[in-house]
Amino acid sequence: MTTRAKIAEYINAAHEFADLAGAAILPHFRRRIRIDNKADSGFDPVTAADRAAERAISKALATRFPDHGLEGEEYGHRNPDARMRWVVDPIDGTRAFILGMPLWGTLIGLMDGDTPMVGLMDQPYTRERFWSGEKATFFRGADGKERRLKTRSCPSLADAMFTTTDPHLFKSAKDQRGFKAIKERVRFVRYGGDCYSYCLLAAGMIDIVVETGLKPFDIIPLIPIIERAGGRVTTWEGEPAIRGGRIVATGDPRLHEEALALLA
Amino acid sequence: MTTRAKIAEYINAAHEFADLAGAAILPHFRRRIRIDNKADSGFDPVTAADRAAERAISKALATRFPDHGLEGEEYGHRNPDARMRWVVDPIDGTRAFILGMPLWGTLIGLMDGDTPMVGLMDQPYTRERFWSGEKATFFRGADGKERRLKTRSCPSLADAMFTTTDPHLFKSAKDQRGFKAIKERVRFVRYGGDCYSYCLLAAGMIDIVVETGLKPFDIIPLIPIIERAGGRVTTWEGEPAIRGGRIVATGDPRLHEEALALLA
Repeated sequence: MTTRAKIAEYINAAHEFADLAGAAILPHFRRRIRIDNKADSGFDPVTAADRAAERAISKALATRFPDHGLEGEEYGHRNPDARMRWVVDPIDGTRAFILGMPLWGTLIGLMDGDTPMVGLMDQPYTRERFWSGEKATFFRGADGKERRLKTRSCPSLADAMFTTTDPHLFKSAKDQRGFKAIKERVRFVRYGGDCYSYCLLAAGMIDIVVETGLKPFDIIPLIPIIERAGGRVTTWEGEPAIRGGRIVATGDPRLHEEALALLA
Repeated sequence: MTTRAKIAEYINAAHEFADLAGAAILPHFRRRIRIDNKADSGFDPVTAADRAAERAISKALATRFPDHGLEGEEYGHRNPDARMRWVVDPIDGTRAFILGMPLWGTLIGLMDGDTPMVGLMDQPYTRERFWSGEKATFFRGADGKERRLKTRSCPSLADAMFTTTDPHLFKSAKDQRGFKAIKERVRFVRYGGDCYSYCLLAAGMIDIVVETGLKPFDIIPLIPIIERAGGRVTTWEGEPAIRGGRIVATGDPRLHEEALALLA
């Protein structure tokens, strides 16, 4: 099989996995839970939904690509030494999920060695899906129409629209310094968003996302989505984003240079 | 006409106005704009969408209830001395709208003198609508099914899930003190949300929303939605929320008492 045919097969598989995950998660979304003193020992809809989705993906993966690896948030690693490894976060945006806000997403990525090869973000409630093809990034909304995404031009922080999930996640002195340096220079900031923000950056609606403390599975599936739409995503030091940590993504590569000079 | 029949007629009208507003706004949502140095003198999609929606509502209202008043965000007042006054915010959640996040909403309220009589929030992109009937609050999602909403029990801040749109909006010393007092005691906080948060409070997903600097049209349409689902909404001093300002809404009335003691 050619590389192109292989990638097409992997993208098809990512869509299949996302369909399975969405079907497993949706029955738990906006399920009301009684919040009282016993809440901590009670039913946790996020954990239940996370696990159900990861199980569904794990089972389908074992059938379709038995020699591939899987790194999931809930169940840990399988075939960790495989060249092809799927990296899955069934529900990125736990707090949004718990509160009933439709800004969480299912993240599904495929690593070829150290290179993110395929990425997909699915929001099953709004029926929105963002994914990377071999060379481009695509979006499908509730109307079922597919369209290609591109980041927008925004060469300067002075014009940039900035999002980050929560200002209080910047805890260390370095984190605080970096966050403030960006926040003081941008056009405006908006909080909340998780994976949804990176996808809107790929769609040319947001110019910069800066976060800290990300896990590899929080960012790996988003890398091809961002990069193949024309954007750039690295650590604050300009290193590959695949190990997570402090992350900066921009739609315009020139903006990335300005941001790195402030963050590094 | 009986009072009940009148209210039913007003609710029908609110739905009609929301349909018109959504049709006027959606073509502007996620319309990509080039962000460059000329942006401020260029096309503003929010203003264009706001105005188109308010014009559509204003025209329909003049035909249907020519003697009613209208207070809109864009065009100011009409028949300001009328007993029945419609209060409209075509796009509550401007920043969410600009960034392509589906957490903004069209707010439509009807005041009978100083009493909020009908309230409606519409999110046309996700096809979600929240509204108050005469004695209850309802929700309709993309599946078209209507269901009744109720707030959930949460008697103590220690168990509460708290949202506010942006922590940096609390600017004065009093604002800061109030925000911190709540934030330090709750189970967790999430930023971003605007009108959507109050509706999720009515749906029993969020326990408390605390904000400052609200305009009357930001909150009036939400009051009947919150109260008829079992919640409570007032100023930080416990006064009626109809004039906006510093607002606290809770799903559980007991939580409202605890919050007021900290905020007042």
